[in-house]
Amino acid sequence: MPTIDAARIAAVLDLVRTRKPLVQNVTNFVVMNSTANALLAIGASPAMVHAPDEAAEFARLADSVVINIGTLSTEFVAGMRAAVTGARGKGAPWVLDPVGVGATAWRTRIADDLATLGPAVIRANASETIALAGRARAATRGVDSTATGDDAHDSAALLVGTTGAVIAVTGAVDRVVDGARVASIANGDARMAQVTGLGCTATALVGAALAVEPDAFVAATAGLAWLGIAGEIAAAGSAGPGSLQVKLLDELATLDGATIAARLRLS
Amino acid sequence: MPTIDAARIAAVLDLVRTRKPLVQNVTNFVVMNSTANALLAIGASPAMVHAPDEAAEFARLADSVVINIGTLSTEFVAGMRAAVTGARGKGAPWVLDPVGVGATAWRTRIADDLATLGPAVIRANASETIALAGRARAATRGVDSTATGDDAHDSAALLVGTTGAVIAVTGAVDRVVDGARVASIANGDARMAQVTGLGCTATALVGAALAVEPDAFVAATAGLAWLGIAGEIAAAGSAGPGSLQVKLLDELATLDGATIAARLRLS
Amino acid sequence: MPTIDAARIAAVLDLVRTRKPLVQNVTNFVVMNSTANALLAIGASPAMVHAPDEAAEFARLADSVVINIGTLSTEFVAGMRAAVTGARGKGAPWVLDPVGVGATAWRTRIADDLATLGPAVIRANASETIALAGRARAATRGVDSTATGDDAHDSAALLVGTTGAVIAVTGAVDRVVDGARVASIANGDARMAQVTGLGCTATALVGAALAVEPDAFVAATAGLAWLGIAGEIAAAGSAGPGSLQVKLLDELATLDGATIAARLRLS
Repeated sequence: MPTIDAARIAAVLDLVRTRKPLVQNVTNFVVMNSTANALLAIGASPAMVHAPDEAAEFARLADSVVINIGTLSTEFVAGMRAAVTGARGKGAPWVLDPVGVGATAWRTRIADDLATLGPAVIRANASETIALAGRARAATRGVDSTATGDDAHDSAALLVGTTGAVIAVTGAVDRVVDGARVASIANGDARMAQVTGLGCTATALVGAALAVEPDAFVAATAGLAWLGIAGEIAAAGSAGPGSLQVKLLDELATLDGATIAARLRLS
Repeated sequence: MPTIDAARIAAVLDLVRTRKPLVQNVTNFVVMNSTANALLAIGASPAMVHAPDEAAEFARLADSVVINIGTLSTEFVAGMRAAVTGARGKGAPWVLDPVGVGATAWRTRIADDLATLGPAVIRANASETIALAGRARAATRGVDSTATGDDAHDSAALLVGTTGAVIAVTGAVDRVVDGARVASIANGDARMAQVTGLGCTATALVGAALAVEPDAFVAATAGLAWLGIAGEIAAAGSAGPGSLQVKLLDELATLDGATIAARLRLS
Repeated sequence: MPTIDAARIAAVLDLVRTRKPLVQNVTNFVVMNSTANALLAIGASPAMVHAPDEAAEFARLADSVVINIGTLSTEFVAGMRAAVTGARGKGAPWVLDPVGVGATAWRTRIADDLATLGPAVIRANASETIALAGRARAATRGVDSTATGDDAHDSAALLVGTTGAVIAVTGAVDRVVDGARVASIANGDARMAQVTGLGCTATALVGAALAVEPDAFVAATAGLAWLGIAGEIAAAGSAGPGSLQVKLLDELATLDGATIAARLRLS
């Protein structure tokens, strides 16, 4: 099993830039533009395709699929299932972002169902991780996390067992776990929470990494590291959340191995 | 009845920053990202939740609800009604943005219906205010206002009577009225009209204020003042509408009592 | 037939700024915000109105209509047909953007159907042009073009014959053709491909031009020239795709005849 270090994370980035994988997104309205731009900036080719009439057929063209339940509707759920079916039929990996799971019964049921369909990675904040594991659902409040990474540790381990997925819990320190390995990424900046949908961007970047990297644990770690490093550089150079959102795309587009080596805080 | 002045408007802002109220938005596709970012910048916690299957349940968690009819559909109208029902059941306030009312018969009927459901505030431009009051509907053209604030004055007074809401009419000078009080806010910059959806941002900020301020007249005045002040600073420092949109978020995030005191033009 | 040169392209821009035409968009979720902002920046009045219940009625108010199939759904297709019907009933021109045609059977069928309804202009990349002409559909991969402008030349000529539309194929060099004329526009910058939806922005700007310019060949050439010139200036002054997207709006808003005359590369 290869060691995960800065060189490996840079190598996955180089593969994305070389192969320009087609990443299909069935995602929420809030972030369709911003995550498409993040995927382009990192070097992937995004497609926002969710209609039940074509999501499965399109997924057979895609190198990976991103499923994000932020702004759900019955029609989008059908599109999510179709895209997952298409990806599975082709053997392409997919990543699940269970936005706001635990906030309403309907949303929780849909997230629970999707989690059983074989995602390679589930990317969530601490509250969502706890809710998806079936614990302390009353603690979820809206879409922002009220729990800490430590609270989510046991829940993530539980989800690895029940879903077979790599679990990537983002927060002040991101943590990626599978059955055997744990990676902690201490990059990023607290000001990133003032920009909507950067959790969704994390999920999309994991989707890009999954498209070129068969080890889902490595892919998840790489995607979170890219965002954390680009985000902390952007935050340091920004006057506020508007500038941060813009500069983040600039930094993702110019991210390289030397910057990753200099900044990665992985343990 | 407390006087509205810069100190009061700053106090409402401080409450938003302290309490981080959960503001549920059933809003249009054009502004989902930009208004979520504006709400985060001012210190609130936005959630874009509109599915009929969960909008009412979610509203029972929310501190206020924003209903914006910009890009209507039958499904969204059902979500709007559900969210309003949830908010009313909990006693949470909600604000209505009747975007483009008067442009089509269907849109007008929906806006008319929503206006009867007890919004704490209706935020509209002059043309929309006139159309919602049932006057001169033929004057509406698209979603941008062709009428002036003066034209809308009588219509706003009429709407106070028929809806019980505080009416906030935005334009070169914003005007907020309830049955007894009138506030005029002369902040803002004409260049703000070149950025899409800043009227929707005004409504969302009023929603954040309503979540912490029980006097809807004060809340509406505060929300419009925040946007006008941040917007005029952003416009003065921008090379065009792209920069303005970015800098507006930076300015909302750093807005403070001293800036409000120095710049507020309230009468 | 008037010559197309920088002065003519500037004259169309001046007409947009003077008349502020109402441009109705039935477009995709990814670009609703960015194309509304581009239309405002160029001087038009955008309206994003797609509900089947009102799209036809609204189109009778509009000066032109933009139909973009990026994120299709059954409901949006109904809205597209309604808007086209409304525009045709009034004699207003409309432009079609067949995003991703060829990627799935459903999407291709819808694009084929829309193309028969009399668009004044079809704006597409090379792969989409080839797919819409019924050639080499297997070559389409996602929504980004894998074909070159040269490949698309014959297909564009074929589409002129089958649809009666002016065909505007964008790429490294944009090419506009009708039955008798060909214009090539060598403005723009390769870095524009790193921003999502700038092809959709091209289509929207063509829609603004169509609203004031009865010669669709001139309108298509003008719209592409505006974007190419503003885009190359923005790219030259940007640190990456985030900055480019912001600066593009600033440049569209300040574009003038002198800049067009100095930079236009039209043949």
